[in-house]
Amino acid sequence: MIKDDLICENLSVNENNELMFAGINTLDLAKKYQTPLYVVDEQRVRYKCKTYVDAVKEVFGEKGEVLYASKALSFKMLYGIINEEGLGIDVVSQGEIYTAKMANFPLSKAYFHSNNKTDSDIDYAIKNGVGYFVVDNEEELLSINEIAKINNVKQKVLLRITPGIDPHTYDAISTGKVDSKFGSPIETGQAEVITKLAISLTNINLVGFHCHVGSQVFEPDVFINTADIMLNFISDINNKLGYLASKFDIGGGFGVRYKSYQSDIDIYKNIKEIGLFIKQKCKSLNITMPCICFEPGRSIVADSGITLYTVGTVKKIPGYKNYVSVDGGMTDNPRYALYKADYTVVPCYDMKKERDMKSIVVGRCCESGDIIQKDVYMPSDIKRGDIIACLTTGAYNYAMSSNYNKIARPPIVIVNNKQDYLAVRRETLQDLISLDL
Amino acid sequence: MIKDDLICENLSVNENNELMFAGINTLDLAKKYQTPLYVVDEQRVRYKCKTYVDAVKEVFGEKGEVLYASKALSFKMLYGIINEEGLGIDVVSQGEIYTAKMANFPLSKAYFHSNNKTDSDIDYAIKNGVGYFVVDNEEELLSINEIAKINNVKQKVLLRITPGIDPHTYDAISTGKVDSKFGSPIETGQAEVITKLAISLTNINLVGFHCHVGSQVFEPDVFINTADIMLNFISDINNKLGYLASKFDIGGGFGVRYKSYQSDIDIYKNIKEIGLFIKQKCKSLNITMPCICFEPGRSIVADSGITLYTVGTVKKIPGYKNYVSVDGGMTDNPRYALYKADYTVVPCYDMKKERDMKSIVVGRCCESGDIIQKDVYMPSDIKRGDIIACLTTGAYNYAMSSNYNKIARPPIVIVNNKQDYLAVRRETLQDLISLDL
Repeated sequence: MIKDDLICENLSVNENNELMFAGINTLDLAKKYQTPLYVVDEQRVRYKCKTYVDAVKEVFGEKGEVLYASKALSFKMLYGIINEEGLGIDVVSQGEIYTAKMANFPLSKAYFHSNNKTDSDIDYAIKNGVGYFVVDNEEELLSINEIAKINNVKQKVLLRITPGIDPHTYDAISTGKVDSKFGSPIETGQAEVITKLAISLTNINLVGFHCHVGSQVFEPDVFINTADIMLNFISDINNKLGYLASKFDIGGGFGVRYKSYQSDIDIYKNIKEIGLFIKQKCKSLNITMPCICFEPGRSIVADSGITLYTVGTVKKIPGYKNYVSVDGGMTDNPRYALYKADYTVVPCYDMKKERDMKSIVVGRCCESGDIIQKDVYMPSDIKRGDIIACLTTGAYNYAMSSNYNKIARPPIVIVNNKQDYLAVRRETLQDLISLDL
Repeated sequence: MIKDDLICENLSVNENNELMFAGINTLDLAKKYQTPLYVVDEQRVRYKCKTYVDAVKEVFGEKGEVLYASKALSFKMLYGIINEEGLGIDVVSQGEIYTAKMANFPLSKAYFHSNNKTDSDIDYAIKNGVGYFVVDNEEELLSINEIAKINNVKQKVLLRITPGIDPHTYDAISTGKVDSKFGSPIETGQAEVITKLAISLTNINLVGFHCHVGSQVFEPDVFINTADIMLNFISDINNKLGYLASKFDIGGGFGVRYKSYQSDIDIYKNIKEIGLFIKQKCKSLNITMPCICFEPGRSIVADSGITLYTVGTVKKIPGYKNYVSVDGGMTDNPRYALYKADYTVVPCYDMKKERDMKSIVVGRCCESGDIIQKDVYMPSDIKRGDIIACLTTGAYNYAMSSNYNKIARPPIVIVNNKQDYLAVRRETLQDLISLDL
């Protein structure tokens, strides 16, 4: 049982059979900061950053870059850590740009994504010196050119291209297909049209192309197929227009282990295989290899985070179901409600004890869909006041949290070298109406 | 076409073919307050409140109550309106209690729901004089008794009972089934057990029973079946335990028109039919009719609200799909992402013009599932800068909004007698990091 719980190296069990996270007792954290509580393991974030940076450096040398996709988790202190580890960032809104800026992140290393940048967004990003725009479409490109002109800037851009890959992952988070809302498809000729346009505009400095094929990808094949299509496109554009991309951003999407039966990804091995292919492909196409960018988000922060909850109602409906309610729910983790996402949920105490009560772990919202996870085995004597943990919640939990039911959002505590400190404080009742007139 | 747009009486089209909401030009509102923008029609809220209050008064006289289920939409000014119209409220968290309190709502008329109230919630509600607790389960009942004792209060409570009704609506928002996370089921005997317990506790004043069978119910039959089961239970308890409920809260759930093909509900007629049944049933059971409470949430506020957006990217992928992107999305309305919820989306200008471009209206989040609505017909020349409206967004939009992608939440503007004023201001970049250390 415990084997199935410890799905990441930062999880362990102490001599009292209590769950330790990054060397700190989770029960102590719950007591000190109250629940629900997000906990982030700083050393794990740094380890993941280093893994990417080292692998990319070894494989691509100076011609490789790692950008943290900050939509997975974005708060001020995190940008400080990301910066210290030498990554760039991918940002998707004025809010993310502002947060990074307030953390003194050098915005020259920021790449501004989004399928729909408003004129206000564009102006804000240019005025704040965002290094690169990842341009979704022609209309946006024309706006950037206009606003760059007014600001007397020649804006560096990458064009987001849709290679037409279905990564065979969950449809709603797969984004590389031709019919995606993102980017300009190669297949329809729109990718070539926007490239021509970009080259022709006076205040646009086209530096290359970007693509992103999806999430939770566990094999390098998807990236290799994507690189194959994209490098053919880059070569075609070189032949037709005499323009050779100096950057090729292959996006993010490496999978993360949410359950024990999922495998963990060897990031180094994957990047090496992808790198090998890209180098050979460029050689066979007879083009200079562009600088290759990777954009990990989830795989940097997901298993760096856990959420601690206090159990409230335990409801056993004989012949039907067992419910274990927690003091959080879809307000701090809407991913089961949205995607039926996998999570491992464990008691933080008596971890060696038998768990034979098949349960649905639910939240405290007045909504039947407020579920954290189904088919969780819990000790049959689990009771009000017990502390449990939902693992691998570093990505897309705090980022997607809401105040549904006017429930305050939990704080984020960072643990590092057996120290713990607040990074984002708990929302108060006063905060909840701070926008009300 | 326009016939299909004007799904609620507060929508009309002016002589320039522009969308009017509660007599105000939506284009003017978009210009004045910027987009995305929630707009709430105060007169419509009041009209819906009056409809319920008048119907319940006519049918049940002094033995009827209407409670607004504030989880549908909760902000300070709204509680003021609800109070002026003479309704009580249903609250589900400290946050909702606090918001109502700060709006000077008399908390003696508040009913505190939730499947999982923490001890802190219970203490907060008792200290603030919340009139009634709707108690989910035995464990919670015992906690309330203990905390009431400490506070020297005899707390009025209703018990939430699960009648075992499947309202044949969307599973995730149907809550009256035996295997629900909410309440104590009649079928398993648990409802009787908790009733006995409630009667026996010194600091509990049991006033009756509550149930809720689901959402988007369009026919009175579901409520009549529910009342049948619940009144049999009330009579059984009277016979067995000599306890006769003085209140029976039948919950909420009346449907709302999101698309033109859906019918609008005649609330008065429904309440009359339900009332007729309840009176006859009580007579045949030979019990005094309890006070009957109704808990409308969605049906009070849903069609009192619209959301205005500015169009950004318009993407036509020949042979595939057309996308119309807006400057909001799942951050201000996650209901398509969560439930594939129906909405009517219309341009606010040239409303008589042909709309022949089948489109997916998407948001600005970096997520493929960020969809407002599919199969929306838009004018084929729709372009960046055009204003469009998503109708019937008063319920569960602002309430469920998030800062995903670090996108700021829109303001709420109230329109009333052709005046408009801010009720909740727009979130700023500074607000987005106000909890960061």
